[in-house]
Amino acid sequence: MKKLLKATFISFLAISSAFAQDNNTEDDAFFIRTIYDVALTEGQCYPWLEHLTTKIGGRLAGSPQAAAAVEYTRQVLDTLGLDSVWLEPCMVPHWVRGEKEQVRIVNSTTLGSIDLNALALGNSIGTKAGGLLAEVVEVKSLDEVDKLGKAGIAGKIVFYNRPMDPTQLRTFNAYGGAVDQRVNGPARASRYGAVATLVRSMTTKLDNVPHTGVTVFNDDPVIPALAISTNDAELLSGLLAKEKVKIFIEASCKKLKDKLSYSVIGEIRGSEHPEEIILVGGHLDSWDVGSGAHDDGAGCVHAMDVLQILKRMNYKPKRTIRCVLFMNEENGLAGGLSYAEASNKKGEYHLAAIESDAGGFTPRGFSADGDASIFTEKFKNVIEWFPLLEAYDLTFSKGGSGADISPLKSQKGLLFGFRPDSQRYFDYHHTAADNMDAVNKRELELGAASITSLVYLIDKYGL
Amino acid sequence: MKKLLKATFISFLAISSAFAQDNNTEDDAFFIRTIYDVALTEGQCYPWLEHLTTKIGGRLAGSPQAAAAVEYTRQVLDTLGLDSVWLEPCMVPHWVRGEKEQVRIVNSTTLGSIDLNALALGNSIGTKAGGLLAEVVEVKSLDEVDKLGKAGIAGKIVFYNRPMDPTQLRTFNAYGGAVDQRVNGPARASRYGAVATLVRSMTTKLDNVPHTGVTVFNDDPVIPALAISTNDAELLSGLLAKEKVKIFIEASCKKLKDKLSYSVIGEIRGSEHPEEIILVGGHLDSWDVGSGAHDDGAGCVHAMDVLQILKRMNYKPKRTIRCVLFMNEENGLAGGLSYAEASNKKGEYHLAAIESDAGGFTPRGFSADGDASIFTEKFKNVIEWFPLLEAYDLTFSKGGSGADISPLKSQKGLLFGFRPDSQRYFDYHHTAADNMDAVNKRELELGAASITSLVYLIDKYGL
Repeated sequence: MKKLLKATFISFLAISSAFAQDNNTEDDAFFIRTIYDVALTEGQCYPWLEHLTTKIGGRLAGSPQAAAAVEYTRQVLDTLGLDSVWLEPCMVPHWVRGEKEQVRIVNSTTLGSIDLNALALGNSIGTKAGGLLAEVVEVKSLDEVDKLGKAGIAGKIVFYNRPMDPTQLRTFNAYGGAVDQRVNGPARASRYGAVATLVRSMTTKLDNVPHTGVTVFNDDPVIPALAISTNDAELLSGLLAKEKVKIFIEASCKKLKDKLSYSVIGEIRGSEHPEEIILVGGHLDSWDVGSGAHDDGAGCVHAMDVLQILKRMNYKPKRTIRCVLFMNEENGLAGGLSYAEASNKKGEYHLAAIESDAGGFTPRGFSADGDASIFTEKFKNVIEWFPLLEAYDLTFSKGGSGADISPLKSQKGLLFGFRPDSQRYFDYHHTAADNMDAVNKRELELGAASITSLVYLIDKYGL
Repeated sequence: MKKLLKATFISFLAISSAFAQDNNTEDDAFFIRTIYDVALTEGQCYPWLEHLTTKIGGRLAGSPQAAAAVEYTRQVLDTLGLDSVWLEPCMVPHWVRGEKEQVRIVNSTTLGSIDLNALALGNSIGTKAGGLLAEVVEVKSLDEVDKLGKAGIAGKIVFYNRPMDPTQLRTFNAYGGAVDQRVNGPARASRYGAVATLVRSMTTKLDNVPHTGVTVFNDDPVIPALAISTNDAELLSGLLAKEKVKIFIEASCKKLKDKLSYSVIGEIRGSEHPEEIILVGGHLDSWDVGSGAHDDGAGCVHAMDVLQILKRMNYKPKRTIRCVLFMNEENGLAGGLSYAEASNKKGEYHLAAIESDAGGFTPRGFSADGDASIFTEKFKNVIEWFPLLEAYDLTFSKGGSGADISPLKSQKGLLFGFRPDSQRYFDYHHTAADNMDAVNKRELELGAASITSLVYLIDKYGL
């Protein structure tokens, strides 16, 4: 640990003078600098992610890979000298993709027959053996489907083609403005008798890579629903402007019986306020294509590295610091829901929960959320010390946190979402390209350092 | 241009109230939002960079590719409807790499013979035909070479192996702390009779990719000097801890006669203060390996896109906005020096100069520099309106600007360096991997938008 002594002090911090008088902000600055030093020289998130992605691979809930990831991360946490490591059981949906999907424009008068790059959406179903063939109708919104009604939709393939808005600075906003087509579009189309749905992939990039993701049917009839690449969406739309288009679809995806799985948990127990839990988490499951490097292997190894870094620094927290790797965020949220239910039953209190589920890119800050009755009061405390993190180019904003931790809102602590740079995220999100080669070691390590620093400040000052 | 009307206003800006009262900051916010919209939907930087990198390639000063890049960018500027486009001549060094370099550990007792991944440094010389063979001495600094003196150095190959500091948040600081080994190390070694120099590549990444770059001999004897990959540096250092090591080097690089080349310039003339020049620039030359995508193709297409975006928006600047693509930044700075000399002769005044030479990554802000006699006074004006740019996650700091524009400091305007995220830069810098596939379209476009916005504010409010 000798090198810690060489860490440089931060000379100037725009800390409020009252806060600075009451607290030793120089010590804090030194401690945080040391967290960064350790993360950048002795962080383990990168090799852990390499194992998760290259040795285990895509980890859809219910899959053998998801089970392997549970066992691997549990065993890694077991090596860190934590106070407890355990598994939280949950029943997860078990959806399987089956054979490679076929989506083919058939006998276009101008282009002939063309295979499109497609991926079935999670929770959708396959076609009958031999596939289906139907005319395509292009729409830009669910409202448009309502307007077309049965007369315009029945017997057809509905093609949702509203692009993500490229002018949004934060790509998650662009995603939020388009993803209703994928999540709710197929159900809306099936309500009016559509035989299948195609959805333009959720990315601003023009390429041949289809992006999968969950779709939800609730009470509407379940029909085949697939994403096609943005290049193919452009091609199909161009063709539809000229002629009627028929498309052949064959898919064999299906839901099997629900399966028992687990969220993986490890904690360092607090020395003064063990009943106040500071949770750091990500989700262990991913889509089956690719290997879930950014979504959300990165978040899992971030959370694990928080404990590793604090243990390596021999830090004794006042509060309980708990890492939770949630199962089944992608197509059900079973892990997040069952974790919150179990926590409520035990009468636990999460003072803070931080989720990393926006990729392993360069940190830009955190968004904070919480029950309206406590948010302003608790966030005031964050404002006191957040200049200590601004020195590392981090900012705070109000906003969502993370799907897995959102059920903890009722415990009335603060929820935080880790916010890395978002420009590249939707190049990889839910695709076969979300692999280790898309992850930069330093960017990933800086994420672990940022989250560890936030945990340290919450642990030290409370909320 | 209809879509401009859809641009969203920024509702809240932390603009000083006096500034906001005197000026229509809502108009400014709208204009800047529109710049971003145009950059992200009708920006040309990405296809231009694709041409520079994939059709032209590495553009070392004096090379046929550098000449092609001059002609290509001049012709592109000619299509933009600018008021003038011209070439500024300069004499550049003409260094050629020759045959693939050979660097081989010879007859190690533990490892046998091993080829190392190496690149000759720019401005160094080759070996005699048939190469050279000598014992290696490892050092961590130029001081250590001084201490070893002739007795420890003469007849040997000096191996500089001080790594870049991975704990620096900004990788350029880590580079600055190590690059003296490459720039001045070979000369220092040759002063004491070294027969050649090997330098650990300038990156925090451990891989097999050697990083070239310039070395400077001044009055010391010119000797062969090469960079080896960081993995090879680790291997060599480990071996030296166990045994004496002899290395064989063969390189055929050499300097040819200086050559006439050009910086490429285009401008929109100001309507009210044409004599006040706002320069945006990058450098058109690159190293010969790779294709200079981030260093500094990105900076060139940023600068060109500033003019493209403003012309597309039909903006009539008050001041003269000039794009300069400098030649020979990498191994001589001939373009930057001759540009400043010509400018001084004409009695020009650069109110501001902005260089983009830190890659095409997500923008983080700008650093500002200037002659001490004017800096504080002029920077006060920037502080007035920079919250307009903070809304786009941009910050300002004091610091260096860019090598090419630094000779303009004497004209007593402000100099700015564009500062994108630096985490990935030294994965590619001066390597065969600095290619188009390392560039993200949105990140590049956001750079053009950021610089254009800064240019707009300087043009509107002066300094």
